[in-house]
Order: sequence, then C-alpha cells, then structure tokens
Amino acid sequence: MTRTAYAEFLDRIREIHDLHQIDGWLQWDQQVTMPAGGSGDRAAQMATLSGLIHERFTDPRLGELLDCLADAPGLDAAQSANVRETRRDRDRAVRVPPALVQAFAKAKAQAFDVWQAARPADDFRSFAPHLDELVRMAREMAAHIGYADEPYDALLDEYEPGMTAAAVQAVFEPLGIELRGIIDRLDGTPRPRTDFLERTYDPARQQAFCRALIADLGYDLERGRLDESSHPFTIGNADDVRITVRYNPRYLPAALFAAIHETGHALYEQGVDPAHRRTPMGNAVSLGIHESQSRLWENMIGRSPEFWGHYFPRLQALFPDELTDVSTEEFVRAVNVVRPSLVRVEADEVTYSLHVLLRFEIERALVNGAVGTGELPELWRERMRHYLGLAPETDRDGVLQDIHWSIGSFGYFPTYAMGNLYAAQLRDAMLREIPDLMAQVGRGRFQAPLAWLRERVHRQGRLHPAPELIRRATGAPPDAAHFIRYIREKYGALYGRTL
Amino acid sequence: MTRTAYAEFLDRIREIHDLHQIDGWLQWDQQVTMPAGGSGDRAAQMATLSGLIHERFTDPRLGELLDCLADAPGLDAAQSANVRETRRDRDRAVRVPPALVQAFAKAKAQAFDVWQAARPADDFRSFAPHLDELVRMAREMAAHIGYADEPYDALLDEYEPGMTAAAVQAVFEPLGIELRGIIDRLDGTPRPRTDFLERTYDPARQQAFCRALIADLGYDLERGRLDESSHPFTIGNADDVRITVRYNPRYLPAALFAAIHETGHALYEQGVDPAHRRTPMGNAVSLGIHESQSRLWENMIGRSPEFWGHYFPRLQALFPDELTDVSTEEFVRAVNVVRPSLVRVEADEVTYSLHVLLRFEIERALVNGAVGTGELPELWRERMRHYLGLAPETDRDGVLQDIHWSIGSFGYFPTYAMGNLYAAQLRDAMLREIPDLMAQVGRGRFQAPLAWLRERVHRQGRLHPAPELIRRATGAPPDAAHFIRYIREKYGALYGRTL
Repeated sequence: MTRTAYAEFLDRIREIHDLHQIDGWLQWDQQVTMPAGGSGDRAAQMATLSGLIHERFTDPRLGELLDCLADAPGLDAAQSANVRETRRDRDRAVRVPPALVQAFAKAKAQAFDVWQAARPADDFRSFAPHLDELVRMAREMAAHIGYADEPYDALLDEYEPGMTAAAVQAVFEPLGIELRGIIDRLDGTPRPRTDFLERTYDPARQQAFCRALIADLGYDLERGRLDESSHPFTIGNADDVRITVRYNPRYLPAALFAAIHETGHALYEQGVDPAHRRTPMGNAVSLGIHESQSRLWENMIGRSPEFWGHYFPRLQALFPDELTDVSTEEFVRAVNVVRPSLVRVEADEVTYSLHVLLRFEIERALVNGAVGTGELPELWRERMRHYLGLAPETDRDGVLQDIHWSIGSFGYFPTYAMGNLYAAQLRDAMLREIPDLMAQVGRGRFQAPLAWLRERVHRQGRLHPAPELIRRATGAPPDAAHFIRYIREKYGALYGRTL
Repeated sequence: MTRTAYAEFLDRIREIHDLHQIDGWLQWDQQVTMPAGGSGDRAAQMATLSGLIHERFTDPRLGELLDCLADAPGLDAAQSANVRETRRDRDRAVRVPPALVQAFAKAKAQAFDVWQAARPADDFRSFAPHLDELVRMAREMAAHIGYADEPYDALLDEYEPGMTAAAVQAVFEPLGIELRGIIDRLDGTPRPRTDFLERTYDPARQQAFCRALIADLGYDLERGRLDESSHPFTIGNADDVRITVRYNPRYLPAALFAAIHETGHALYEQGVDPAHRRTPMGNAVSLGIHESQSRLWENMIGRSPEFWGHYFPRLQALFPDELTDVSTEEFVRAVNVVRPSLVRVEADEVTYSLHVLLRFEIERALVNGAVGTGELPELWRERMRHYLGLAPETDRDGVLQDIHWSIGSFGYFPTYAMGNLYAAQLRDAMLREIPDLMAQVGRGRFQAPLAWLRERVHRQGRLHPAPELIRRATGAPPDAAHFIRYIREKYGALYGRTL
C-alpha cells in the first residue's frame, strides 16, 4: 500500500515539478525572446499557471498521501526526503489563505512597476507606500506560516530552509567585524590600475570567449544555452538549464564574470541525479547552497591567478589591441580590486558581504516592525557609513537600488553572503582532497572540482538541509572562518600586506 | 443569473485559452530555442499540460455552465458565439474516452519517430503498421465523436468545422478537372528561366529583406518576431504572434515566400478583436480560413507582377551580383513557374491543389476503410499519374513525404485547398471594393487590403462558420469559380495563352 501511495505521490509531485518548469520557460521567454507587446497576455498566462500550481499543491489528496507516507516503512532515504520536503513546501503553501496570496501577487506587480519608475527618478516617496503595503502583507504571511522567534524567520525559511534570523545574526556580526578590519588594513595600499577594463570590447568577441570558457568549465551546451538579457540569470533543471549575461562593450568584466557565476548555478542544476528527476531530490536544496556554487566558480576559481594564467593569453589573443599593454598579473589585480562602493552588484569579493549584512539588518527590522519605511533612506545612509565608510547621495544608489523588496522578496539577501561562506568551506575541503586543484585550474582543467561538487553537492538534491549537506561534504559544520581565512590569504598576497 | 454564469464561464475558458497559449510557447521554444538535450523533459511538460487542458475542458462544471447558457436571454451575438463554439469543442473532447486520447497520443509519438527515420530511408514497410494503428484509432475516435455520413467527416470537422467529405468532394472534383485542363493547355509553352533562383544568397541579407518586407505588409514586430526553424510556422495569438522561416542559401524563394505566407497567418492572429481576447471570439474560425490568409498574401499579392514591380529593385540592390542579369519580368515569371512535380511543399500555385486532392482522396478512403495501408504506395503513384502525369520512383517522394499522417492528422489536407478557394473569393471582393488595390500593392502600400481583411475576417473571430463568414465578407457563398478564374487570368497573362 505504501508502494501504491508513493507511486501516486510521485505522479502528483512530478506534475507540479513540470508546471514549475513551464513557469520557468515562460519567464525565460519573457526576459530573452518575448516581444514587448506580449507582456499583458503573458501576465495572464503566468497568473493562470500560478493558480494551477497552488491548486495542485494544496490539493487535499496530496495532503492525505503525505500523511499516509509520513514515517512509512519501506521508503528509502531519497523517497523519505521527497516526502519530507514536499510536506515542508506544502505546509508553507496551505497555511497562507489564497486571497492573501493573490493580493500579495497583485501588490508585488504594482510595487515593481512603481519601483521601476521610482529608481531612475530617485523618488523613494512614491515607492514607500507600496513597500509599506508589501511589508504589511509579508508580516501577515509570516503570521500564517508561523515561526518560533520572529516574523522574519518565516520568510527567510522560504529561501534557506531551517535558517533563522538569530542564527544568521550570530554569523554575520563577527563576519562584519572581520571584513571591516580587513578593509581598514587595506587602506593606503597602492591602487592597482583598472583603466584597461573600460576600453571598448566588441560584444561578439566577448560572447565567443564566454561560450568557449563556460564549455571548458563543464557547462553542457547541448543541455543549455547562453543568451543575453538585461540582468544575468540561470533557469531550468536537469537537461535544460539556460544562462544569460549582458555584454557591456565598455566594461569587460561584466559579462565575463557573470558568465562564470551563472555557469556555477547551471552546473548545479545540470548535475542533479537523473534518477530523481522531477522530484525534490532532483532539485537544489537552498539558495545559499546555490549561491555557493556560483561564487565558488566565479570568485574562488574564476578570479584566481591560476585561472588567468591559463586564460589571459587567450583573452589577449582575442583583444590584442585592447590588452596589449596589460600583463596577466595586472589583469588579476584589476579583477580583484577592493574598493568600498555604493552598489552591491558592482561590489568586490571583500566588500560584497557587507552590502548583504546591511540589507539583512534593515529588512529584518522592517519585517519585525522595528523600523518604518519612512526611516529607510536615512537608515540606509547611516548603515552604509558604518559598514563601508561611505553613503549614497541619492536613494537611487541607496535604498532603491535592489529589485528584491519591490517584488516582495524579504529574507532573500542573507543567502548571498551564506553562499560566500559555504563556498569557502567547500573550497577548503576540495583543496584537502584535490591538493593540485589550483594547478589543474592553471591548465584549464576543471573536471576534478566539478566531479567533487557533483558528488558532494549537486547529486545530493534535497536529501539533507544545507548545514548538514555542508557537514557531510566538508567534515565539519558550517563555519565562517574558512571564508575569512580565504579572504585574508588571497588579498594579503594580492596587496602584499598581512590582513 | 445568466450574467454570473457567463462570468464564471469566461473565467474558465480564459484559463483554457491561456493553457493552450502556454502549450504554443513550449512548442515554439522546442522548434526554435530549446537545446537538444531538453526534449525528454519537454515531452513530460507538454504531456502534463495536455492532461490539464483536457481535465479543464471536460470539467462537469463547464458542461453545467454551457447548459445553463444555451439559448440564455441577454447574451449578445459574440457571447452566444463563445458559448456555442465552446460547446462544440467540448462536445468533441468529452466524447472521446481519455484512455483513447492517451493511447492515440502515444501512438502518434511513436509513429512520428518511425516516420522520421523511414522517410530518408525510403522505408514504407516499417512505417505501415504504425499508420495502420493510427488509422484504426482515428476511426475509433470518429465513432465516439459521431458523424452523419462517414467516419472521415468527424475528423475533418476538427479542422474545418461543419465541413463534410461529400461537400469537399463536390468542390474538389470539378476543381481537379479544371486544373488539369489548365495544366494541359500550358503544355508546350516555353519554360521561363529560373537559373538565378539557385545562386548563392547570403542568409543574413535574406533575413534583412524578409524582416523589412513583413513589416511593410503590416506585421507588427513589437507583437511578434521572426526566427528560424527547420519548417516554417506561425504560432500565438493577439499580442504575441511569432513566425519562423528557413533561409536556404541556394534557393532564394524558400524563405522569401515562407515569410510572406507565415505573415498572412500572423496578420490574422494579430488582427483578432482585442475585446474578445482569450475567448473563441478572439481566435481563428477554421484552418481553411487561416490558409486563405496566408495564401492570399503569399500568392495573390506576394507573387504578383505589381508586388515585384515595387520590391524587385530593392531585392536587386541587396543582391547586386546575384541578380544583375535578371529583369523584374523574368523574376516574376520565375517565381510563378508552373511545373508538375512530386513534392507538395515545392508545388506552384496551379498544381498545388492537385496534390491536396490526391491526399484527400487517399486519406478519406483510408479512414473509411475502403483501402488498406499496404496498397498506399501503388495507389499514390497511380493517383499522381492521374492528377499530375508523373509518379515518384521512391516512397520518400511519394506516400512518405508529408508529416501529417505520421502525427495522426487525418482531415487536415483539404483545408489547404479550401484556403486557395477562399482566398481567391476574398481577393475578388476586395478588388471590387478597392479598385486600385493592385496599384497600391505596386507602391508597396498594404494598409487597404489589411484593413479590409481585418474587418471582414480577422475581427470576426468565430462569430460565423467559415462558409457564412465568406458569404458575409464577399456577398456570396463559397464558390471555386473565383479561384479558377484567377488562375486562368494570371497564368494566361504570364504564359501568353488562353487557359
């Protein structure tokens, strides 16, 4: 009977998985290929699909099957994980009244439209009431979903299952102190030249380079594709996983590192276990782990001296005029320059996490009701001065800079910094087990790290929560010390100073 | 109460419309952008979606609403049409047992795979048992759907609502006699030169020309896009309608006329009444009418001397070397050359319908059980000799040439020839009301014919069945005489002979 119940359960979750994938393709099309006029019809199609997914997910029969399968004998570990993870996701979904889901969807769409106009106009006042409304609704959703300590936990849990604000805080606070110390100690070091990054780089040649590079990394272009969109992203799962970048003709690193970053995400999705296709076990476990993959490839491999020892001569051959007066060492320094700045997406590896700490702090206070939207612009400036020693003159470069809040994504930001921490810990474990890892990278060989990540991360699916996945992959529970040490060593060497 | 019932009915049919559109985008992606590896997952996604569409369509509640709304007072003509047309489509759907629908879908997928291998291998024997099975199932479906005279009617009705085999036969028989007479009378006329069509034409420049041309015709590229795929097609509705072509570097007319043909389809879909979006009234009425739009633009406008009087100098400017020794008149003759040939999709305007007559005759006999698949290759050759005076040496160029039967589409072919007939009748009506129509075409102006078709055809949606739409648009019931006269006049002038 368990057998039959599990088979019916599988049919149902596969259908839901398919609908999610379809939703992904509609999004991809919207960002990459859809003609402008199609947006109205597309919104209707996506709303219809969301309604169906919600209906299928909250179907009482699925609840019965989950009850019947809970602690059922005869299920193996993967099957149990599928039951547990579906139960988890479904519990969240059924607790929120459909009317609230719909109202939130509508409010998000409106807030996003307003934000899109408000940001270039530097007009926080027009956006504030919409943000207020989203925060209010997010709190209401948190109340329905339930939490132990604070409303923010219920939202964070969507992106990083099991994580709490208190746990994040316990990691982020010492991390902030360490990073600010490192930035202080870098003060006064000579500024590496970066002028050549802003010469004119033909987009077609950038694309050719990116395409060859991501194939080298192990991204299977027979099961994916590289396109352009206004913001880089990765979408899809298993045998169809697509990435996008944007070629900025006046800033070479933009597409280059976006391509490696998105490839990190794509390798995760392409690397899921085929046996678990169309189930939670064939999907990524958390956004933090997802981000660990993108950042490990982008920063720890893709910005390393070894990597450019191999690739810089190739890049130079493609852009002989533009890079004629640049050495490999200069290029490596330029793409690793540390410089406190206003905008998160342009931040370097050392300052990046501080941008995240600030956002976590502010959105947590917002959701928990400790601060109102009216106070945000000034609070943003104050915290920027605290974390990075500078403050934006405009809200466009301040509180309005990110899309996340405008689409109601509260609790998402911490996963970016978690990704950095997980990545460094995975890197250390890899280096222990593949001692010549960076030498292989220096020869443009990436099979060993990819195989390691495939086994320890990608094929694990949602078998274990993120912290347990890290513990099993690395032999120790999550520990930010790996990231701090990595930053100290890398930037100490680059800047010739003890950090 | 009618009001409320109609509102609920609308919600339901809009959802079904959205799901059909989503299915269309998955198909478009599959043909245009999907990486090869994605086919397995995509098949699962499309099967899931088909299941959902069938479930929604056959939902008993929709049946209740249709009962409640049948002859309900207070509905306007468009609303009544939506009820009537949904009832029609739903009745067809509910009559076929889901198990048969699924078995047919599976058998089609297998038969298509076998056909794809059998055609290049010229191996009808391997395909025959699959075709047998599809015919058997199609007959079974026809029995469930019901028909007055013969099983074939039930299938034809899917593509051309209300049409019967006997009615088609009554039109096609005299049409065949007329066309064969015209072909006989063309015998012995000097063969126009066509050598220059097979020079090497840069695909990028072909694309630039096509893009400019279809925009001139009125195709709104803000609500559509032009791409490449192995077979040209049009997909979408209202504000997102996309076309594809294939650029053959060694045969200029391929992409050129495919682009105009598909634009004809696209103008229909882009031209539906916005007020009736996401309902039957905002969709095309039949495949015959759809094909009338593509053929009117492709052949009657796009292959006219007036059209090339305007465009040939532009084409020549784009391909100065390739077309240096060609006059406009020579080009017009070349793209209108009449030549009995083996392959339908390469046939000219005069012989094309005879290919359709042959297929109608054979598939009708197949479905009605008058002939078995084993007899097809010889029957094909015999009927080719009858209609076109030549017979294929291989089944690849004979009974295996079309995709339609391999995907279980019996009853589809007649709509191609119906399209020619409807197109000629619409053209005559337009010429009556826009006397300088062809002079406008000669100046590259297409607003007048497009506006006429918008009003008389596109915005009518499914308000009237195809024959009634033609009667209202042209003032007379469908009559093949228009097409015969058009062919006689056009080709009589081109070949300098009374036809």
